[in-house]
Amino acid sequence: MKFELLHTDGLARRGRLHTARGVIDTPVFMPVGTQATVKAMTPDELLAIDAQIILANTYHLHVRPGEQRIRSLGGLHAFCAWPRPILTDSGGFQVFSLAKLRRISDEGVYFQSHVDGTPLFLGPRESLNVQAALGSDIAMLFDECPPWPADEKHLRLAVERTVQWAQISREYLDAHADDPTWNMDRAHFAIVQGGSDENLRKECAERLIDIGFDGYAVGGVSVGEPEEHMFLAVGATTAHLPKDRPRYAMGLGMPHQILEMVALGIDMFDCVLPTRMARHGTAFTKNGMVNLTQSKFADDSGPIEEGCECYCCKKFSRAYIRHLLKSHEILGLRLVSIHNLYFYLNLMRQARLAIEQDRFRVFVERFNKEFCSSEMPE
Amino acid sequence: MKFELLHTDGLARRGRLHTARGVIDTPVFMPVGTQATVKAMTPDELLAIDAQIILANTYHLHVRPGEQRIRSLGGLHAFCAWPRPILTDSGGFQVFSLAKLRRISDEGVYFQSHVDGTPLFLGPRESLNVQAALGSDIAMLFDECPPWPADEKHLRLAVERTVQWAQISREYLDAHADDPTWNMDRAHFAIVQGGSDENLRKECAERLIDIGFDGYAVGGVSVGEPEEHMFLAVGATTAHLPKDRPRYAMGLGMPHQILEMVALGIDMFDCVLPTRMARHGTAFTKNGMVNLTQSKFADDSGPIEEGCECYCCKKFSRAYIRHLLKSHEILGLRLVSIHNLYFYLNLMRQARLAIEQDRFRVFVERFNKEFCSSEMPE
Repeated sequence: MKFELLHTDGLARRGRLHTARGVIDTPVFMPVGTQATVKAMTPDELLAIDAQIILANTYHLHVRPGEQRIRSLGGLHAFCAWPRPILTDSGGFQVFSLAKLRRISDEGVYFQSHVDGTPLFLGPRESLNVQAALGSDIAMLFDECPPWPADEKHLRLAVERTVQWAQISREYLDAHADDPTWNMDRAHFAIVQGGSDENLRKECAERLIDIGFDGYAVGGVSVGEPEEHMFLAVGATTAHLPKDRPRYAMGLGMPHQILEMVALGIDMFDCVLPTRMARHGTAFTKNGMVNLTQSKFADDSGPIEEGCECYCCKKFSRAYIRHLLKSHEILGLRLVSIHNLYFYLNLMRQARLAIEQDRFRVFVERFNKEFCSSEMPE
Repeated sequence: MKFELLHTDGLARRGRLHTARGVIDTPVFMPVGTQATVKAMTPDELLAIDAQIILANTYHLHVRPGEQRIRSLGGLHAFCAWPRPILTDSGGFQVFSLAKLRRISDEGVYFQSHVDGTPLFLGPRESLNVQAALGSDIAMLFDECPPWPADEKHLRLAVERTVQWAQISREYLDAHADDPTWNMDRAHFAIVQGGSDENLRKECAERLIDIGFDGYAVGGVSVGEPEEHMFLAVGATTAHLPKDRPRYAMGLGMPHQILEMVALGIDMFDCVLPTRMARHGTAFTKNGMVNLTQSKFADDSGPIEEGCECYCCKKFSRAYIRHLLKSHEILGLRLVSIHNLYFYLNLMRQARLAIEQDRFRVFVERFNKEFCSSEMPE
């Protein structure tokens, strides 16, 4: 993997990530395909909105259907018929938040499957093994993600363990450098922890950079913290990251938050919001979020968003979508999912162009004025 | 509307129905779009599998979102973005089976909405009004559909009322012949009742034919009766229908049943089975029905059906579809819905060809041997 930094506008970066499965223009939004499917979408619908890369979850796929099964079926790309790059997370976040935790040791985490209670173990090596079997293009290192709020001691411990696991990961990767069953085209990103403690963020970043990875992520965000802590954590991390490596803010965020983090120098984002909100009938528009089940849309022949070029907006009215949502018809959430993902991807396209043209700050201000306006439809 | 009878093979008919919105090759299967959406499908996915006509439900659309709303939004075709013909049922079946019945009179039926309990009324005129507002291409007359089993007296009463309502409908239609707000391109089909009583079926058919409609349907089937009663009711009806009008067996059926009814001279079918079974993870194949959640498919890299040309079979493995279904992912039921509807439509294509080539009986025997074989996968 090679990262090309094409242009900067303030701290905002316009880049290009070259992978074996294609080029990714950054800043980029990665639709989330937890269970090897971006919820309610076919791969062709994702190609139609020009998703450049999707995310899949190591924890979920390890638990079900199992990475060896996916490997024997030709790997994750063949399994879900997605030809472009895939980033897999390390499973760390889910192990700490979703599974029934049994015990944390220096080697990793003993836990129970949330599906059937099976006792399982994931550590830095196991996570890399799973991701190698899945055959993703970008793999994340196994880290300890503390909950929010966490006290200083806990944050410190999480940083120590994250760095220690990164060291183990590095050695494990180097040992597999000539292993033909490992596709070493895969990039590996380390995850910076440290909460909203600027010194801890700096220390964690520097120690991970010393070990050396293909990219760096901001972890421990999107765990329930207030927005200002999120920005603080991100800014305190990007300030210390090398310019020639991609940077990824994990699990974030709302559209205006993403733009704010692009302004702090982040290149990559993933978030379940566009598809999750769609399933609740809520659409993203440049004028804010709109719940389409509201009765005021019952006779509205206009599209979700005037001028939007997505399949949903070109073909269907708010009135029809409202009817589908009120009738609990699957097509309703399908159409809003398409629109919301298009909205996120299109926002990133516009952001990339604004950076290229050195007008990113103005672009963000204009976007925020409309999106966060008090004139929001609800 | 014009019906062209192109060829017969025994009683089986190869025909062509000319409507203002396009030609329909018969025998035809009509995917069911109860709430103005064929469940989990976009109109473009329906066009891709070459659905020629879809069905929508008068009762459901009357209750929600209301036919005047749909009319003011440009009619049903614009509302759901479906450019080809639509058949709407009369609401009779649902009023008798789904709604809380309040009272039946000679004028129609007082009932309560199953959504919010609103008191409503549907009779022959009201049903035609609703269907005119929706702007469907083929409208069904309001009939009384007795439950199964029903005694002789009840069957007789239902026939009397159905004929009486057909007479009222005919007069109401004639009175609107020059009404520019009614699109008189719309065809109107009468529904023959009479249970599995051959004499009653004959009488009902003859009395409806005397009044005169564009097509005739077999009603009172698919209400829980055994298969032999279904065939008896259909055969006892088609024997007395005019050759120059299309014939429609309502709400039917399994693939082998449909072929049997084509052999009895039926031209049109609709059934929720392909989409409903898909939502339960069951696929139709030429070797019978297969529940894809079975563990034996966990590592199966083959398509649902070898040689099938549908989007699902061309791109995805049984193993992936099983994973999606087990994970309750919407894409799973979407893919099986596409496959099942393709299976039904493709079966009708093959049936049409077999009739044209005077080998329909052999075709049916071969299909049944494979589809109903004891070697079925489950």
